[in-house]
Amino acid sequence: MPAHEQFVASNEAYVSTFDKGALPMPPAKHYIVVTCMDARVEPASQLGIGLGDAHVIRNAGGSAKEALRSIVVSQRLLGTREVAVFHHTDCGMLTFTNEELREKVKAETPAASEIVGEIDFLPISDLEDSVKTDVAFLKESSLLLQDTVYTGWLYDVKTGKIKQVV
Amino acid sequence: MPAHEQFVASNEAYVSTFDKGALPMPPAKHYIVVTCMDARVEPASQLGIGLGDAHVIRNAGGSAKEALRSIVVSQRLLGTREVAVFHHTDCGMLTFTNEELREKVKAETPAASEIVGEIDFLPISDLEDSVKTDVAFLKESSLLLQDTVYTGWLYDVKTGKIKQVV
Repeated sequence: MPAHEQFVASNEAYVSTFDKGALPMPPAKHYIVVTCMDARVEPASQLGIGLGDAHVIRNAGGSAKEALRSIVVSQRLLGTREVAVFHHTDCGMLTFTNEELREKVKAETPAASEIVGEIDFLPISDLEDSVKTDVAFLKESSLLLQDTVYTGWLYDVKTGKIKQVV
Repeated sequence: MPAHEQFVASNEAYVSTFDKGALPMPPAKHYIVVTCMDARVEPASQLGIGLGDAHVIRNAGGSAKEALRSIVVSQRLLGTREVAVFHHTDCGMLTFTNEELREKVKAETPAASEIVGEIDFLPISDLEDSVKTDVAFLKESSLLLQDTVYTGWLYDVKTGKIKQVV
């Protein structure tokens, strides 16, 4: 059974107790979490983010660079003034290089050969470094507001614990 | 108090009952959810996504185009074969045009004037259309695997309900 066939039943259970229909669009606590798409990452429960509190941006690796468009929208239109970047242990982005993934895609899908070479998959070689680099990237971006608090963190998928890096 | 000062206390409560440290890296249910960063969206509870089940990609609007890099990584390295794209009612991306947001950024931050013109903020003019367009974009991408199930959905922030669009 495709996974999406379970969405409706799960959502009906959610709707039966839903009482948050009046929440406004801007995040109540004015912050953004940037984190990985990893299946073992669940920001709401792991960081105590209540519904309506924060913007949550997720992509492969938790790249702040790729999140920039979303952060600009969040700051300029919806009033956020704090960004927390989380990367995590055992991340898939630690397991390959751009060249290796490009070659794999080309071998599996020859039709992709021409365009896959243009994609930077943003692999990570060192977790703490990647968090520091991402926070520095945001701090230095002229597109973002000066009065922003930036922090950087690691989440440990084996223990469930977070650790502040920067 | 900055929001991040609450992360550690919230996370300690999470860790005290955490028993999922042995979950593997690949998503157990082999699917990806692409959805918006909106503060009222919480995929795990709203769709019944268990820890370890699925990759969750989030950005401003739930753009499948921006999610492409992450989806390639997910499919090629971590075995996912299904993608569900969710957009939602009352989305901030319905409230502006590229030109309006660029002018706002320039007015607030003159130093950003040169580079903000290069950014497509991916605003949305019609929700059902944007879901259909995003699913079509993924289906047509030569970078993605042929044997993939794609679905497209809307989430209603007032009722908590989902509706399948495509």
